[in-house]
Amino acid sequence: MNRSAQYVGEQTFVVEEAAVVPPGPGQVRLDVAYTGICGTDLHIAHGAMDQRVRVPAVIGHEMSGRVAEVGAGVEGFRVGDPVTVMPLDWCGECPACRAGHTHICHRLDFVGIDSPGAMQRSWTVPARLLVPLPADLSLVHAALVEPTAVAVHDVRRSRLVAGEHAVVVGAGPVGLLIATVAQATGAAVTVLELDPRRRELATDLGLTAVDPATVDVARHVQEATAGAGVDVVFEVSGSAAGVRTATDLLAVRGRLVVVAIHPTPREVDLHRIFWRELEVIGVRVYDRTDYAEAVRLVHTGQVPADRLVSRIVPLADVARAFEALAAGGDVKVLVDCGGDA
Amino acid sequence: MNRSAQYVGEQTFVVEEAAVVPPGPGQVRLDVAYTGICGTDLHIAHGAMDQRVRVPAVIGHEMSGRVAEVGAGVEGFRVGDPVTVMPLDWCGECPACRAGHTHICHRLDFVGIDSPGAMQRSWTVPARLLVPLPADLSLVHAALVEPTAVAVHDVRRSRLVAGEHAVVVGAGPVGLLIATVAQATGAAVTVLELDPRRRELATDLGLTAVDPATVDVARHVQEATAGAGVDVVFEVSGSAAGVRTATDLLAVRGRLVVVAIHPTPREVDLHRIFWRELEVIGVRVYDRTDYAEAVRLVHTGQVPADRLVSRIVPLADVARAFEALAAGGDVKVLVDCGGDA
Repeated sequence: MNRSAQYVGEQTFVVEEAAVVPPGPGQVRLDVAYTGICGTDLHIAHGAMDQRVRVPAVIGHEMSGRVAEVGAGVEGFRVGDPVTVMPLDWCGECPACRAGHTHICHRLDFVGIDSPGAMQRSWTVPARLLVPLPADLSLVHAALVEPTAVAVHDVRRSRLVAGEHAVVVGAGPVGLLIATVAQATGAAVTVLELDPRRRELATDLGLTAVDPATVDVARHVQEATAGAGVDVVFEVSGSAAGVRTATDLLAVRGRLVVVAIHPTPREVDLHRIFWRELEVIGVRVYDRTDYAEAVRLVHTGQVPADRLVSRIVPLADVARAFEALAAGGDVKVLVDCGGDA
Repeated sequence: MNRSAQYVGEQTFVVEEAAVVPPGPGQVRLDVAYTGICGTDLHIAHGAMDQRVRVPAVIGHEMSGRVAEVGAGVEGFRVGDPVTVMPLDWCGECPACRAGHTHICHRLDFVGIDSPGAMQRSWTVPARLLVPLPADLSLVHAALVEPTAVAVHDVRRSRLVAGEHAVVVGAGPVGLLIATVAQATGAAVTVLELDPRRRELATDLGLTAVDPATVDVARHVQEATAGAGVDVVFEVSGSAAGVRTATDLLAVRGRLVVVAIHPTPREVDLHRIFWRELEVIGVRVYDRTDYAEAVRLVHTGQVPADRLVSRIVPLADVARAFEALAAGGDVKVLVDCGGDA
């Protein structure tokens, strides 16, 4: 039997037992070990995406597990192989796909939002979504590959290089991952974060953490960069203030990376963008190369997965996992789906 | 004697005769042939930049002329050589200069605004600002090299390539130059312009000109690009509507180039920037490579200087030149400074 957490609407999850789905041609069935909960999952659980998510829905797209069963015609994977899933399924035919930007497909199926996800013991997916994992990588840590791939993509798009200065506005899970990936490139990284617990964690991870409510950030940056300003700002707060701070802090030819989702248009200082030849760069999910680099960074420990996973909750208690995350204080909460045996 | 147009404040020019300034070491004295009037000059003439411009001021930074006298230590230029001036003088020591972005120097002297310019018969400048011109290039046409260099810089920063689609919002002189330079790269170019006379000129130049007040531009672009959207939008209107149009029209990974000066922050659809991985690119003036390409494009006629110069007014009547430009209907008005003999 399979056990799954079903989101049934009205901010409610029901844990159900049902028959295992055998893999069809080109598919594999996975034993899911761990599934992480991200901000989007929390939005869904709070009912904010009921227009997009068709209930009952099994959500979850940050996962690790092992191949349990291989469908006809699948090559390259065997039962027991440790894997994760890149949860993007594209049409291959729209203008974005034809231009090679499949991760921004006009009809993208984001697996775990638009189609069934990983918050279940047994998950059957197209084999083309699989990403192999090193045999000696902890499956707890491997559940962080997906959000790490986001960070890798964002840092890659920023063109940040060793010796440059970066500021990350907002030190939640995504902000901390971006900051650690940015640091791994050899850049000097400062995170701006209002929450003292998050600042403490950032400091523990070797980052410079600044409270923008009490520190004159512009002056701090001027001093740290000998008057130049910073090369890259990652806006991960989703706030109007974050956008304003970003354009203020950037050096000539600096890059502002728009990571957070801003639900409404924001006032942007286009005069500053002109005057300093700044760039604003939109970033969304990742591609295969980002995934490969994310696996490497988690495997080497350059992304400190052990420090970022703050809680593991059994699948039967999935509601508690969402409550913990919503309460704040946690960084990354994983659901133990039972497949790490 | 030298004759110059002096801006004395209160929207007033006075034409004066004074002694010629001989070139010091490292300087040359030029016989100025023609000086173009740009939007910034018009702003100055209207008193909008009295805080920055110290009166009495000789303004003007789009020029052509010949070397009249060579100061000590100047090599590579002889009396009679046709030249133009790249009107940027940088400090060489600030963070932007040290990073190699001298055209965005923190203490940039924009010659013709911050220091004396070309609206005079005899102009003495540092030889390092000179750009040589081909012997057979009309000095009337050569007065368009500076604004063409702006367009070359903007198109280069956009990374526009042959086969791509570009939209230019606003078909004033800068917009038309950007459109013709973009067309010279092999891109398909559409200009959006409210003024019917400017649309007519754009059409005469082989561009597709659309009236955004009567045409559904989004639909037009969808049809022209098979649903993809355009690759580059140049925002040359300086309007909030132009910015909104730009993010609406862009394809996945499209680039919005901020050419116009937006005096106040604008609402920008950051969600769209995230969703389609758009880029916003600030652009300001040019560098030496842009100037060299601008000379080439004016020389070959790919930039149709003869179609863009709509009026030539003698230096003695400089006030009339500004009045004509302010009245609309002109594209590029030149002041004949007397040096094309």
